[in-house]
Amino acid sequence: MSAHTRTRIALLVLASLVLATLAGRATLAESTAPAVNEERIQQHIVELSKFGANPQGGVSRVAFSDADIAGRAYIRGLMQEAGLRVRVDTAGNVIGRREGSDPKLPAIMIGSHIDSVPGGGNYDGDVGVMGAIEVAHALNAKNVKLRHPLEVVSFTDEEGGLIGSLAMTGRLQPAALDVVSHSGKTIREGIRAVGGDPDRLDQARRARGDLAAFVELHIEQGALLDEGDVDIGVVEGIVGIRWWDVTIDGMANHAGTTPMNRRRDALLSAAEFVLAVNRVATTLPGRHVATVGRIRAEPGAPNVIPGRVVLSLEVRDLEAGKMQQVYDAIRAEAERIGKARETPFAFAELNVASEPAPTDPRVRGIIAQAADSLGLTHRAMPSGAGHDAQDMTHIAPTGMIFVPSAGGISHSPKEYTTPKDMANGANVLLRTVLAIDRGDLR
Amino acid sequence: MSAHTRTRIALLVLASLVLATLAGRATLAESTAPAVNEERIQQHIVELSKFGANPQGGVSRVAFSDADIAGRAYIRGLMQEAGLRVRVDTAGNVIGRREGSDPKLPAIMIGSHIDSVPGGGNYDGDVGVMGAIEVAHALNAKNVKLRHPLEVVSFTDEEGGLIGSLAMTGRLQPAALDVVSHSGKTIREGIRAVGGDPDRLDQARRARGDLAAFVELHIEQGALLDEGDVDIGVVEGIVGIRWWDVTIDGMANHAGTTPMNRRRDALLSAAEFVLAVNRVATTLPGRHVATVGRIRAEPGAPNVIPGRVVLSLEVRDLEAGKMQQVYDAIRAEAERIGKARETPFAFAELNVASEPAPTDPRVRGIIAQAADSLGLTHRAMPSGAGHDAQDMTHIAPTGMIFVPSAGGISHSPKEYTTPKDMANGANVLLRTVLAIDRGDLR
Repeated sequence: MSAHTRTRIALLVLASLVLATLAGRATLAESTAPAVNEERIQQHIVELSKFGANPQGGVSRVAFSDADIAGRAYIRGLMQEAGLRVRVDTAGNVIGRREGSDPKLPAIMIGSHIDSVPGGGNYDGDVGVMGAIEVAHALNAKNVKLRHPLEVVSFTDEEGGLIGSLAMTGRLQPAALDVVSHSGKTIREGIRAVGGDPDRLDQARRARGDLAAFVELHIEQGALLDEGDVDIGVVEGIVGIRWWDVTIDGMANHAGTTPMNRRRDALLSAAEFVLAVNRVATTLPGRHVATVGRIRAEPGAPNVIPGRVVLSLEVRDLEAGKMQQVYDAIRAEAERIGKARETPFAFAELNVASEPAPTDPRVRGIIAQAADSLGLTHRAMPSGAGHDAQDMTHIAPTGMIFVPSAGGISHSPKEYTTPKDMANGANVLLRTVLAIDRGDLR
Repeated sequence: MSAHTRTRIALLVLASLVLATLAGRATLAESTAPAVNEERIQQHIVELSKFGANPQGGVSRVAFSDADIAGRAYIRGLMQEAGLRVRVDTAGNVIGRREGSDPKLPAIMIGSHIDSVPGGGNYDGDVGVMGAIEVAHALNAKNVKLRHPLEVVSFTDEEGGLIGSLAMTGRLQPAALDVVSHSGKTIREGIRAVGGDPDRLDQARRARGDLAAFVELHIEQGALLDEGDVDIGVVEGIVGIRWWDVTIDGMANHAGTTPMNRRRDALLSAAEFVLAVNRVATTLPGRHVATVGRIRAEPGAPNVIPGRVVLSLEVRDLEAGKMQQVYDAIRAEAERIGKARETPFAFAELNVASEPAPTDPRVRGIIAQAADSLGLTHRAMPSGAGHDAQDMTHIAPTGMIFVPSAGGISHSPKEYTTPKDMANGANVLLRTVLAIDRGDLR
C-alpha cells in the first residue's frame, strides 16, 4: 500500500467518520430536537382562565384588577417552574430570565400579555405568554443552553394602550399615567399595585441593542388563517392607525313644522358620508380598512332635525402613504357631500395615531423557515390589531407569529384557538429562538 | 190728515227711525268695533319675558320652575286687570272668567300656555295667552257683554307633554304624574307646587258640551307664513305623530382585523335607511314629514365595527292613513336593505303616538272670515307641532290661529313675532269669539 494509497484510505475513513458523525447528529436533531408540550400549554391556558373568569366562559381580567394581580402571581410561578429568574420591572412588566452561555450577548425576548379587555376571551395575549414559557420548558427538557440569554415577558396593560411595552421602549407619555384604566385605578396607581414604580419608569427602559430580538406569538384575531386553513401567519407588520373626529353642521329644527324641502339635516349628510367611507375603502385596491364606529346626532331627540353630527373615522394600513391616500379620497367625498347639502364637514385628527410598524424582514424569514421545518403551512399577513410588538420594533429586530382564531372572533368570550394550533405556534417560536440564537439574524 | 195718512206717516217715520237706527248701528260698529291694543300686547310680552330670562335673550321658563311660578303670578295679575275672575283648577291650569249675559250658555275658552322649553323663546305659547287676555281688555273697553261666558286659560306644562289640557280633557295617564319634568319635580309635585291637586284631577275635567268652543292663538313655529308673506294661518288640524325605535343588527367586530369584505356593519345599513326615510318622505306626495333625529351605534367605539344601531323614526301627518302609507314604504325599504346587507331591522312603535286632531271646519271658516273682515291675508295649513288645542278637539269645537314666526325659528331664544302680527292674531281671535258668541257655529 503506497503512502498515497494509505493517505487515500485515511481520507476515506475520515470522510466516512465525518459523514457518519454528521448523519448521527442529524438523526439526533430529528429525534431529540426540543419541542413544546401541547398538553401543558393547554393546561396552563385553562388554569389561567380561572383568574377573572366571566359567566360567558371568557375572562374579564382587565389590567390592575384583582384578577390581573392574581393572574400575574400565577404566571410568575409558571416562569419559576420553567427555571426562569423572575423580576418585575418598574413598569410592572413580569420578566423571567434564563441566562445564556455567552455573557456578552444581548437577550432574546419573547412574550405577550395576560390582561384582557372587559368581557374578553382566554387566548388573546395568553397564548403568547404561555407559548413563551413553554419554549423555556422545551429548552430545559433537552438541556439546551442558548448562547443568548432568553427573557420571557408578560407586558403590563396591553389592552389599555400597550402601557408596558411603551414604557420599555421609552415612549410612554407622562399624561398616560393619569388615565383611569378599566380597573378604576389610574395607570400610575395600577403600575404601583402590580409592583412597579411609576416614578422610575426610566429603569424599565431598554435601549436599541439591549435585545437581540423580540418575537411575539399571538392569535390572529381575524379569520384569514382559520378560513384559509393555514397554520401560521408570518406578520409583516402592525398596521398604522389614524383617528379623526368628523363634525357635520346642518341646521337643527322642529321635525314637525319644517317641511322636507326646507331642511339642512346633518344626519342625511352623515349617512351619505358613512356609505362613502365604505365605498372608498372597498374601491381602492389594498388591504387597508376604514371604519365609522361611533356616531352622535345633536340634539339627539326624535322630534328635532339633527343640527350636528359627530362621528369617528378610523383608517388602518401597513403603509402610511396608503392611509393618506384613503383619507384624501374620503375627504374629497366629504367636500362633495358638504357642498351639495350645505352641511360643512370638519375633520379633527386625534393624537392617538400609531405609525405602521413593519416587522424585521430577517425575522419574518426565520419564522417562515421554522414553519417550513415543522411542515406547517404559513402566509404573510399584516396585523390589523395593535400589539406590544409594534413598540418593540423601535428598539429590536421584531417578529410576530400568528396562529388561527376560530371564526376570527376575538375580544369576546367566544375566542378560541385549538391546543394543536397553540403548540404549532409555540414550536415555531421555539425554532425561531433557536435560529436567532444560532446567529441567523446576522 | 186722515187716519190712514197719519198711519202712513207714522209708519214712514218708524221706518226711517228703524233705518236710521240700523244705519247708526252699522256706523257705530265700524267706528267703535272692539279691537286689541298692539302696544299693550307687546308690553306684556316684554314683561313676561323677564321671568326666566336666559342670557341669549329668550326664556328658560320650564313648567313648575321658580320662573314658571313667578310668571303664573304675573299673568294672574294681568287677568285680574282685564276684569277676569281667576282660579287655578286642580291640574294647575290658570283660568280667568268673564260672565256672559245668558247663564244657560257654555263658556267660550281661549288661551295657550306660558311655560317654555329649556332655552326657549318669548313667543311660543305666550302670544296666545297675552292675545286672549287682550281680547278681554278689548271687550271691556267697548263695554261688550257677550252672551257666553268667556274663559281665558293658561295651560299647565304644555312643553312637557300637554299636561294641563290632557287633564282638562280627562286623558292624562296616571303614570305621567311620576315623570320627572325639566324643573326636577315630578309632574305630580309640579302640579302641587303651582296650586293644583294631583289627587283630584277629575275636578279639572271638562266634558263635551261644557265649552261652546276652544280657540288657540299661537305662533306658527314654521316659515310658511313668514316666507309667503301671509298674515294669518287657519290651522286645519294638529298632525298626528308616530314614533318608532328602529334596531338594526349586524355583527360587531374588530375594525383592524376584519377586512372590508367580511363585515356586517349595522351602521352601513343605518346610513342607507336614513337616506331611504328621506327619499320616501320627499317622494310621496303630501305634506307629511319623516325624521331620524337620534342614532346610536353599539358598542360605539372608533375601533369596533358597529354590531347594532338603534335610531328613532318619527312620522307626522294630518291623516292617519297617510302616516301609515309613509311608514309602510319605509318598512319596505328597511326590508330591502336588511336583506341585502344581512342586517335585520326591527321596528318597535313607542306609546307616544298622537292621533291627527283636525280642527272644527266651522271654526276654521269663522277664523278665515274674521281675517277677511280685518283685511288680513290667510291660508289654511296643518300644525306640524303639538298644541293644547289637539286635546281640546276631543271635547269642544276647536280652532287655531297662527301668526308668523320670523324665519320659522322656534324653541329658540331667536324666536320672534312682530307686535303687528301679534295684534293681527289677537284681533282675529277677538272677532272669532264675537262670531261664535253671535251663534255662527250653529
